[in-house]
Amino acid sequence: MSKIKIGIAGYGNLGKGVELAIRQNDDMELAGIFTRRDPASLKPLTDGAKVYRLDEAEKYQNEIDVMIICGGSATDLPKQTPELAKLFNVIDSFDTHARIPEHFANVDKAAKESGHLAMISLGWDPGLFSLNRLYAESILPNGKTYTFWGKGVSQGHSDAIRRVEGVKKGIQYTVPVEEAMEAVRSGSQPELSTRQKHKRECWIVAEDGADTAKIEETIKNMKNYFDEYDTTVNFISEEEFDAVHNKMNHGGFVMRSGMTGDGEKTHQMIEYSLKLESNPEFTASVLICYARALNRLKAEGATGCKTAFDIAPSYLSKLSPAELRATML
Amino acid sequence: MSKIKIGIAGYGNLGKGVELAIRQNDDMELAGIFTRRDPASLKPLTDGAKVYRLDEAEKYQNEIDVMIICGGSATDLPKQTPELAKLFNVIDSFDTHARIPEHFANVDKAAKESGHLAMISLGWDPGLFSLNRLYAESILPNGKTYTFWGKGVSQGHSDAIRRVEGVKKGIQYTVPVEEAMEAVRSGSQPELSTRQKHKRECWIVAEDGADTAKIEETIKNMKNYFDEYDTTVNFISEEEFDAVHNKMNHGGFVMRSGMTGDGEKTHQMIEYSLKLESNPEFTASVLICYARALNRLKAEGATGCKTAFDIAPSYLSKLSPAELRATML
Repeated sequence: MSKIKIGIAGYGNLGKGVELAIRQNDDMELAGIFTRRDPASLKPLTDGAKVYRLDEAEKYQNEIDVMIICGGSATDLPKQTPELAKLFNVIDSFDTHARIPEHFANVDKAAKESGHLAMISLGWDPGLFSLNRLYAESILPNGKTYTFWGKGVSQGHSDAIRRVEGVKKGIQYTVPVEEAMEAVRSGSQPELSTRQKHKRECWIVAEDGADTAKIEETIKNMKNYFDEYDTTVNFISEEEFDAVHNKMNHGGFVMRSGMTGDGEKTHQMIEYSLKLESNPEFTASVLICYARALNRLKAEGATGCKTAFDIAPSYLSKLSPAELRATML
Repeated sequence: MSKIKIGIAGYGNLGKGVELAIRQNDDMELAGIFTRRDPASLKPLTDGAKVYRLDEAEKYQNEIDVMIICGGSATDLPKQTPELAKLFNVIDSFDTHARIPEHFANVDKAAKESGHLAMISLGWDPGLFSLNRLYAESILPNGKTYTFWGKGVSQGHSDAIRRVEGVKKGIQYTVPVEEAMEAVRSGSQPELSTRQKHKRECWIVAEDGADTAKIEETIKNMKNYFDEYDTTVNFISEEEFDAVHNKMNHGGFVMRSGMTGDGEKTHQMIEYSLKLESNPEFTASVLICYARALNRLKAEGATGCKTAFDIAPSYLSKLSPAELRATML
């Protein structure tokens, strides 16, 4: 059987993760990397990888089965995914939850009109966490769902602290509050405020002579980012920062606490968690296995836009349905 | 919209759990309970519930949308599910993992020939645990999957100890070994023997004058059930037994420890766990939400046999695809 030809649009951390994930799946091959930069300036991890200009992608339609779009959700994907869906079958990791319906509609229209198949908002949240919310809420209709994130690096919050005057380097970790998770696990179904669920930890290298008290105050009072949280701000040396805070780890928890039985007095607890040493590599691994599902669904004639909710799990595996029943059920 | 008419075949703990789960889903209604016992002898939890003889089920084909078969896997389901699939759309919780391919083939044939839709092996293992194995192994192809069960009551092992001479009452708990789970979470991908993964705890009320040392020895050396495990045997009073050991709690963990990235050196951990106060009520809740999926797939024209692997998650929810994208993705 011929391999699934994967294109990568955008070659940052996520794009590199996809490139590496292809190596772990012998039914796939890297068909091309598409970039807005000068193709000659890219140094792919794969010997002989083809690098093309993103604005010339149209020329390579016959060489790509699935284009994985690895741009950012703020400005790249709302534009790129509908545009590329006119030319390719596409997958993205669009993660601005509030704008998913609008993004879905745009991508669905472009994909249907051109006869392509698209999948959006894949990764772990949205993605695997969404799936777990859906399964758990369908099974336990009387209950409460909690999502905790971390401990892990938030790119948005790290960017925000790096914009504060006097900050040379900075990173922000979102930390779930252990007491809150234990309260959920107890079955008490607590009402938890934003502050009760997560803490924020900042590690900062200050510019020489910067006013660290002022940096700390500015961060702690930053609207939307930090003002609703308990935040700690730590100043460290550049050497320590570079040695310790160079990872992109993340993770989190989805919990559903529900009640069943006569009088709904029986407590049932479902918990799903991820502990990831590399957020982009893991997200890439999710995207790649949905590329397999996309390729199969496309062969069955599907077009338009889908999400993780629409894909039967068996489509994700290299194994046949009979092999799956014999080995994994 | 008319409600989904649910039939319950077999009225033990699982059947009662299904009856109670129907109450939590306002798009469903109990259409009838089918029993091998004298229908007049049953005391359903639902006022006015109709109780019929199982061997006259054929007469009620037009009154049932989905028949949930609540028999045991050892002897009931291998016979009942293919037979009832000739008359109804059916769901079961067949859990003898090694015999699933054979059961699937029998049910698939019966359902296809009669134009019905069947779903087998639903619950939490097989069922939700199987789904988590499939998702996790598809996402992290380089890794190792571990399933731990417990702490919870094993019916099979409890039955086995109750057959030992001198045992008046007995219950067996399967207990996952905490150190083994921690070793898995560390990312070391340990090879774990049967003994290293689970312990077995027995609580026993002995007959007056019974030889407790002999009971303990007989249990600990019982082939296939206890000989490969570290087993503790505790003798207690009947009062304590009745007060403390009257629950059907269970649960467990599915863990996938995988490696990604350049040289596959990045550790990624996926963990799913259940903590259930009532195993049969939870299993029933899973069956009921797959009844909704079955009813929808049947309306689309599907026939034959399916498992959890074949069902797109969105079919499980009462919410529409657009509502799911807006609220849960």
